[in-house]
Amino acid sequence: MALRVQKYGGTSVANIERINNVADRVQKAYDQGDKVVVVLSAMSGVTDSLISLAKQASKTPDKRELDVLLATGEQTTAALLAMILKSRGYKAKSFLGFQAGIQTDKTSGKARIQEIDGKSIRQSLEKGYIAVVAGFQGADENGDITTLGRGGSDTSAVAIASSLKADVCEIFTDVDGVYTTDPRICSNARKINRISYEEMLEMAILGAKVLQIRSVEFAKKYNVPVHVRSSFNEEEGTMVVNESADMESAVVSGITCDMNEARITLRKVPDQPGVSAKIFMPLAEAEIGVDMIIQNTRSGGETDLTFTVTKDDFERAKEISQKVGKEVGATEILTAEEDIAKVSVIGLGMKSHSGVAATMFQALASENINIRLISTSEIRISCIILAKYAELAVRTLHSAFGLDQKK
Amino acid sequence: MALRVQKYGGTSVANIERINNVADRVQKAYDQGDKVVVVLSAMSGVTDSLISLAKQASKTPDKRELDVLLATGEQTTAALLAMILKSRGYKAKSFLGFQAGIQTDKTSGKARIQEIDGKSIRQSLEKGYIAVVAGFQGADENGDITTLGRGGSDTSAVAIASSLKADVCEIFTDVDGVYTTDPRICSNARKINRISYEEMLEMAILGAKVLQIRSVEFAKKYNVPVHVRSSFNEEEGTMVVNESADMESAVVSGITCDMNEARITLRKVPDQPGVSAKIFMPLAEAEIGVDMIIQNTRSGGETDLTFTVTKDDFERAKEISQKVGKEVGATEILTAEEDIAKVSVIGLGMKSHSGVAATMFQALASENINIRLISTSEIRISCIILAKYAELAVRTLHSAFGLDQKK
Repeated sequence: MALRVQKYGGTSVANIERINNVADRVQKAYDQGDKVVVVLSAMSGVTDSLISLAKQASKTPDKRELDVLLATGEQTTAALLAMILKSRGYKAKSFLGFQAGIQTDKTSGKARIQEIDGKSIRQSLEKGYIAVVAGFQGADENGDITTLGRGGSDTSAVAIASSLKADVCEIFTDVDGVYTTDPRICSNARKINRISYEEMLEMAILGAKVLQIRSVEFAKKYNVPVHVRSSFNEEEGTMVVNESADMESAVVSGITCDMNEARITLRKVPDQPGVSAKIFMPLAEAEIGVDMIIQNTRSGGETDLTFTVTKDDFERAKEISQKVGKEVGATEILTAEEDIAKVSVIGLGMKSHSGVAATMFQALASENINIRLISTSEIRISCIILAKYAELAVRTLHSAFGLDQKK
Repeated sequence: MALRVQKYGGTSVANIERINNVADRVQKAYDQGDKVVVVLSAMSGVTDSLISLAKQASKTPDKRELDVLLATGEQTTAALLAMILKSRGYKAKSFLGFQAGIQTDKTSGKARIQEIDGKSIRQSLEKGYIAVVAGFQGADENGDITTLGRGGSDTSAVAIASSLKADVCEIFTDVDGVYTTDPRICSNARKINRISYEEMLEMAILGAKVLQIRSVEFAKKYNVPVHVRSSFNEEEGTMVVNESADMESAVVSGITCDMNEARITLRKVPDQPGVSAKIFMPLAEAEIGVDMIIQNTRSGGETDLTFTVTKDDFERAKEISQKVGKEVGATEILTAEEDIAKVSVIGLGMKSHSGVAATMFQALASENINIRLISTSEIRISCIILAKYAELAVRTLHSAFGLDQKK
């Protein structure tokens, strides 16, 4: 008998038939004696429809109200699954974020979970209920509805698993697990059986959409075993766990490609102390995360400043940049949303192997792909390139690091 | 400077363009110095779509979960209006039922408001906010989401108006006000300028869909002046107020027609003491309201029992009736959902005028319309007839009581 938290993504609950399939799985776990907490996303496409509705209402929708609107998506699926389970004779009960005790900070649109009061869910489980939790949402200390950002249901699930000390947090999705790279781009991509939190974190940060970044951080911090697997078959997927000796010992574990960044360039910024702070403070205050920054000093005491933000933040970042750009005396603000991609190689082995960067740059150069920006971490190297080379770069790197070969 | 509660129905918020029109009206009231609380329904059609989704999930959807699902409709419109008002530079904030302090009992699907803690809304108004409240919903003492039944947003609005001691509760709808009868059935129907709570209550109970019954009960109990008016023009509508000397002194104020009842007949029920209780107690326990009851004693110690329920409750009432019918030994249960209509005449003047019933029966007889069941109150007479005669009956009665004539 185990306590399992199962999270099902948007494609797994896309319609009533699929929600019935989810109910089959939940039922099976329950029938074999497990306690089950189910965390659901909105039906696939619903969150996007709601965002587009909001954009019809307002060009830059108020973030507090957007959260109130978006939260309806998960509320819908949670209620539907609970209904189905009850109509099959099971004890089941839906929990909205605030009812599940998920307390967050006040950052609308990408709130962070501060605390989970798992009491209500625990009591329900003890009474034999299946707890069906609306993912992606919580409430701040004032009781205002908040949402956790794209993929936030993963974080809801891992956080609940951690608070309940669950035996496993199963993330059911529309892929079989975590792959060495995106199989839609590279047909030689292989499923990874076990991956460390650290590698998974880098892969999530870099655009492997299978898990939300914060969910991996949470899992790492509280040591929650996460099982990423398909909701459409019974195969084992990928276990995301602590680094261990028996882990696949590749130097590079995976290649990622992130098309979700947009670039902003401020031209001819006066090259004075404090200018960067003047530019980046307002972005930080607006809670816009800046990823890569590059600065090229020009002649004549001027500098060009380029940085990247996620496309979600692009509109607001642009507005702020134009304002502060004018204030600091930049002559021109160039923005380009669509034309860049970030390809990255990730692997724990990098810590002990040198030459990974050289291999990467060499592989890209062999295809005449120009590198615009580079950033690195202990277990990752990322390059910004033109978007049109993205797929070619991924396939080239996948093969250059020997990931194509079956082990 | 007044405190106004404005409620907008489903057709008034049917799409973003119309919600923008609502914002225009709200803005106008706010700009002239009034404090405004807006209560919204779901977009027209949305509640029905959600119910049909629920019925795909389960033939008889669990009521607690149905409430969780339905509540998303008003959550959506409240968030959208608040967004629009904010994007126009106004201070605005959405409130879900529980955030607005609307505490109800636990009767899922048709919960009753027990208490309103208006503190949050009042504080927001004092800070210059426009409060946008999701109608139709509340929460019980456990924090479970509840809904107030069809048209429940009217009740939300009146209840909030009463708790805030608002100067007026304006119900904006797709008609110009309360009519002597349904203008779609009878082209001679006239708008009523002022009507008493009592008459309005009877008309609402009897199917005049312009106001939810409980909202009128609430308005009557707490003496809330209600102004029913069109959201598509600036005309004065109908004031619903305390009975007063200057009220239009017609014997009959209006004719209603309710097609929303279904009939259940239990044949050959043993004619023994306690049998009726055995039949109606389980219905009461299931919170199914029974409207009219008729009992015909047959020979041989048996009796036929006919009663009506709303079509919403029909499926459940049928199940229960079949079960208890078998238990008490009824030989046959006949049910008919579609074929009946209840036509009623309403008027405060009936208290002091005799002959209204006779005129009504005479008028129906003149068109050869057979009366199946009759029920009366101090200010109302209702007859159940075959549905196919409904429109004819309404027109005949409207003319027989002189409502056609302009005053």
